[in-house]
Amino acid sequence: MKLIADNLRITKPMIREALKSRDTRPVQELVKRCAVQRPFALDVNTGPLGKNPEAEMRFFIAAVESVTTLPLLIDTSNPMAMRAGLEAAKNRVIINGFSLEPRKLEMILPLAKEFDADIVGFLLYPDSRVPKNEAERFEIALELMDKAERAGVARERVIIDPVVPPLAWTDGIVQARAVLNVIRTLPEVLGFAVRTIGGISNLGTGARDKAKRRLLEQSYVAMLASAGLDFALMDILDTALVQPARVSALLAKEEIFSWAMVPGPCEALPQDTKSAPINPNFKKG
Amino acid sequence: MKLIADNLRITKPMIREALKSRDTRPVQELVKRCAVQRPFALDVNTGPLGKNPEAEMRFFIAAVESVTTLPLLIDTSNPMAMRAGLEAAKNRVIINGFSLEPRKLEMILPLAKEFDADIVGFLLYPDSRVPKNEAERFEIALELMDKAERAGVARERVIIDPVVPPLAWTDGIVQARAVLNVIRTLPEVLGFAVRTIGGISNLGTGARDKAKRRLLEQSYVAMLASAGLDFALMDILDTALVQPARVSALLAKEEIFSWAMVPGPCEALPQDTKSAPINPNFKKG
Repeated sequence: MKLIADNLRITKPMIREALKSRDTRPVQELVKRCAVQRPFALDVNTGPLGKNPEAEMRFFIAAVESVTTLPLLIDTSNPMAMRAGLEAAKNRVIINGFSLEPRKLEMILPLAKEFDADIVGFLLYPDSRVPKNEAERFEIALELMDKAERAGVARERVIIDPVVPPLAWTDGIVQARAVLNVIRTLPEVLGFAVRTIGGISNLGTGARDKAKRRLLEQSYVAMLASAGLDFALMDILDTALVQPARVSALLAKEEIFSWAMVPGPCEALPQDTKSAPINPNFKKG
Repeated sequence: MKLIADNLRITKPMIREALKSRDTRPVQELVKRCAVQRPFALDVNTGPLGKNPEAEMRFFIAAVESVTTLPLLIDTSNPMAMRAGLEAAKNRVIINGFSLEPRKLEMILPLAKEFDADIVGFLLYPDSRVPKNEAERFEIALELMDKAERAGVARERVIIDPVVPPLAWTDGIVQARAVLNVIRTLPEVLGFAVRTIGGISNLGTGARDKAKRRLLEQSYVAMLASAGLDFALMDILDTALVQPARVSALLAKEEIFSWAMVPGPCEALPQDTKSAPINPNFKKG
């Protein structure tokens, strides 16, 4: 399980302000802080963006890439901004993402072919409803793969996001378990080693007690790793979550163990703010 | 996943000394401290015992039962001591346990029939070697069930212990994952909802760094819960492990979630040293 930083979000006032005023510095500082924690990639989440989405996206990507060579997930539902981001990016990019929503099938999915990029596919109905059970999720996954192939995108290019539900939903805990089972069994259902991605922060949406939220996230991230999740999106600066995630990844994946491989609790990482190199190993296995 | 306290161990000098000098007080004090943490049961581990194993076991059981009505796992490889414990116990008891070792098949397994008790069955070869992979574990599980039925013990009475390996073994991490898969798939292989039990402390055997050991145990206990483990043996006084275990159990089992169900981190439990009642619900489901 590789960790992807979800810290570069338009929902953060600091980022929103920086984009609005075209101020590079706060973006660079945040990227540097994230890079120190050695994520596999950075999710660049601009949301639908404002008046001039393409210019905003170009500015955002340039600001991020000025201090890192890490792969970027371009995370917007605006097809014009997505295209602008893909054109602007020099780092490796992943499109985040498409679903069965007609507008995304028509305007976002073809960009994966045009830019020869991996693309995240969400297990959601065309109207963004969340499926009710595992069977519905498998059906949607098959449909996403079918749509991708019809658009000239190899199914191996699609990274499935089964959409971690908030536990606060009436059946949130049942759905959270369904997501684990889908991650575990999807490769068998689809017949190839499909990669999966999941965001942790959704699980605790609505929690008022931060300590309880953290305990749940720590347990769930271990379950996700054990189920075979390939990419976990999380606040990479939240050491109390990142440490268990790394330890769980080690338990779930390594073939040989040594105590030296275990990151200590809240271990200080080297204060090296140079950007991490591109990881050429963006494959399942 | 229910928690079972493994604190009453002969390997602890305090317990060894109490048994030797027939001093009830230290045993009672420890049992009371454990009961406050509301385990499902207590594992009473006497090892092979000393000169007069039967008398020692009777004393140990009586000391424990003088302050609690919790179910007890009687944990000894000495058949005479096991019988003495079963005869002495007033609380509900579980025999811990048997394996394919001829002496245990002959002398321990029949006690499950005689005393109408559940019995733990270890996935080990007759010479106590640990199986190398999942297939070998399934074979041993089938053989254990066969031996149980031949001894007049219903297979539903057997609780399988797949034996959590130390990560420090050459292939410990691979075996630790095999144990998870065995727990997950054993009910399907055996064709009924077989219950499983696992001890957490074995995982970190040989670890010098306690903080790293704890991180690994926290992640692994979440994976065990997610795999469907029914009973987790652990140091019930180690809050930093018990809290994640309870949160993981909640994620793995509950049908309806509310934030109030989540134990807070290092939350003080009520200072009630009265013994917990017997849990009549010692069934899978």
